[in-house]
Amino acid sequence: MTQKKNAFYAQSGGVTAVINASACGVIETARANKDRIGKVYAGRNGIIGALTEDLIDTGKESASAIAALRSTPSGAFGSCRYKLKSLEANRREYERLIEVFEAHDIGYFFYNGGGDSADTCFKVSQLSESMGYPLQAIHVPKTIDNDLPITDCCPGFGSVAKYVAVSTLEASFDVRSMAKTSTKVFVVEVMGRHAGWIAAAGGLASDHGIPVVVLFPEIEFDEAKFLKRVDTLVKEHGFCTVVVSEGCHYPDGTFLAEQGARDAFGHAQLGGAAPVVANMIKQALGHKFHWAVADYLQRAARHIASATDVKQAYQLGQKAVELALAGRNAVMPTVERISDVPYKYRIGVADLAKVANVEKFMPRDFITKDGFGITDKCKRYLAPLMQGEDYPKYRNGLPVYVTLKNVAVAKKLGRFDLK
Amino acid sequence: MTQKKNAFYAQSGGVTAVINASACGVIETARANKDRIGKVYAGRNGIIGALTEDLIDTGKESASAIAALRSTPSGAFGSCRYKLKSLEANRREYERLIEVFEAHDIGYFFYNGGGDSADTCFKVSQLSESMGYPLQAIHVPKTIDNDLPITDCCPGFGSVAKYVAVSTLEASFDVRSMAKTSTKVFVVEVMGRHAGWIAAAGGLASDHGIPVVVLFPEIEFDEAKFLKRVDTLVKEHGFCTVVVSEGCHYPDGTFLAEQGARDAFGHAQLGGAAPVVANMIKQALGHKFHWAVADYLQRAARHIASATDVKQAYQLGQKAVELALAGRNAVMPTVERISDVPYKYRIGVADLAKVANVEKFMPRDFITKDGFGITDKCKRYLAPLMQGEDYPKYRNGLPVYVTLKNVAVAKKLGRFDLK
Repeated sequence: MTQKKNAFYAQSGGVTAVINASACGVIETARANKDRIGKVYAGRNGIIGALTEDLIDTGKESASAIAALRSTPSGAFGSCRYKLKSLEANRREYERLIEVFEAHDIGYFFYNGGGDSADTCFKVSQLSESMGYPLQAIHVPKTIDNDLPITDCCPGFGSVAKYVAVSTLEASFDVRSMAKTSTKVFVVEVMGRHAGWIAAAGGLASDHGIPVVVLFPEIEFDEAKFLKRVDTLVKEHGFCTVVVSEGCHYPDGTFLAEQGARDAFGHAQLGGAAPVVANMIKQALGHKFHWAVADYLQRAARHIASATDVKQAYQLGQKAVELALAGRNAVMPTVERISDVPYKYRIGVADLAKVANVEKFMPRDFITKDGFGITDKCKRYLAPLMQGEDYPKYRNGLPVYVTLKNVAVAKKLGRFDLK
Repeated sequence: MTQKKNAFYAQSGGVTAVINASACGVIETARANKDRIGKVYAGRNGIIGALTEDLIDTGKESASAIAALRSTPSGAFGSCRYKLKSLEANRREYERLIEVFEAHDIGYFFYNGGGDSADTCFKVSQLSESMGYPLQAIHVPKTIDNDLPITDCCPGFGSVAKYVAVSTLEASFDVRSMAKTSTKVFVVEVMGRHAGWIAAAGGLASDHGIPVVVLFPEIEFDEAKFLKRVDTLVKEHGFCTVVVSEGCHYPDGTFLAEQGARDAFGHAQLGGAAPVVANMIKQALGHKFHWAVADYLQRAARHIASATDVKQAYQLGQKAVELALAGRNAVMPTVERISDVPYKYRIGVADLAKVANVEKFMPRDFITKDGFGITDKCKRYLAPLMQGEDYPKYRNGLPVYVTLKNVAVAKKLGRFDLK
């Protein structure tokens, strides 16, 4: 089975500061194995590119452009939020994928994404058997939410964690300076709809003399208990910082961000959790506050990426190609932690069947008993993932990020309409 | 007049990523002139420390701790928002200042702040004449808003500009990746209540292929024109980024952030301008959006500080001491630009009387004709201020920022109650 085949690579779901480092790992490793892998075609906007036969010929990019992907945030080929239904529910799309793969002689399918994408990749991997088309589907993990199972961590998370920890520390120093006559409470909202891994990183500021309250999606929000905690910290330290996960919610499942606020026209006001929490504190305790919502700034912050994260993102892309060359199908390379201090890990392999549609939440013993902070065990887990700074190059004060040419491959098939 | 005197240094108003670099410049230069300057006392929480005789003996800090100030954001001695009234309106406070200065043999007053603080410093400088107390008052400029007159730029601004430009670029790459099936408009809110200098920095992303709309406080908000611009850019590029200054307002002076939104309890909902703008676009054009409010994250972001900014902050602190030693009073060291490319500047001097209570806005020719972008002239102005990266040291994945001992000086006077 050493017949030369082309490869398909696509980015899926929310992009990260390091997903392009995985792309770099995939493409450079494929290029190093020209005897086995022909072209690497990228899907323009993820799986949609495969369905609509909108393929990008990565062979048109120079070696230096591909190398520059390693230090460029976002998804260089475009990503998408599009989940394939089951084979039974949407046979048409699977048949189309096969048609496109056959037309372009694609034998390797590399899908770079999170939980939903692992599910898509798993379904595609089953094409091989159920539809009699020879294809090896390998999932390359990616998610700032760090919620994929089996792997110790997910590329994208270490860099967001570093951004959130650094930003929380810096802003807390700011509030501490101002607390005497001005702001006493600073609230920062971070991503994580279901899992509190990102919020947990903000808790690291507590090791630097900062009184921090973390609000996790895993812990039901108790307003009275929360306000008491803030009150205590402000009385004790003169100020405090609150890191609130966007997924923080009341016992009935209502998100903090959904407070039924209306604008002057009666329209529902889409606010974040941070202003809600800040106003809650103002009304109950009277403290002057400031709040921030980091949103995309956090997951795109390549300028403060974790060197560990960048390295692992690359290695997982590299390993995906190696697994394909070794004949594997329906698998995902993983990070297996060997030790915390010194940090040691190896790249392992997981069956995709066990990855798809499983979410990994913060273990309860990573969260302090009162539910507002992180334990030493959590800190030991987080620390190595944020190690090292992998700075991009700068020109004229701004980072040098690459925008690829993204040359389209000539279409061979008829048009295909989504849905 | 070479009699040895002690010095007083205080930080005032909103802190920045580099105000401590100015403190470092003041203290290290004073230490290098031990024959002329005795102790350097810092006011705990700015001028309040002087009024309440709450002085910090910076002599208790090691040389390495003082050196570490150069790479530590926030105000190491605490800042305050407290504006002295005129001598006529509040003679009591001025008399108290003199009492404290005399008790501690203080002959040099270094005040590190923005426009309001320049006013305070100027008033203190007049003590010398009107109350017959020999004192030299030197203002050390500081403000992320970049709105002080005479000086070409203000320490703190270059670093915020760099943060905003980098973050806008990164998040815009993110949106570009997602635009096919998800977010098409990203809105980021930045500081600048009256002047649009910070927002202008976000406009630099346009040099990197990003369609950006900037909303300045200097340009009255025209909703229809704005929506048309966003619509055009999204149609043309598939996505766009909006950088909105917190000070952006309607022709009648109402800030965009004041939309009269109410929460479920009927309380006024304090929102930012970003969610307001994002919802406006959603309702008019239907685009999926994301928004961020950087708030303190931007002004505390020492991790991405501009090397030019850090250097100038230090030099202005150094120059303040040199001016004092040269017998000057009621002055402020400034940055005088000599050329854009290559960037050359020298440290000059301005009379405080000309600085106090004057705000410098964006010149109209720095803003494009349509009011939504920055001109080449503006870019030439901004570029050098963001040059170079002055990274802090890291330990365990987090920056090493110093927290001083801040040892109190023994009080010699009775208690003084503010107001």
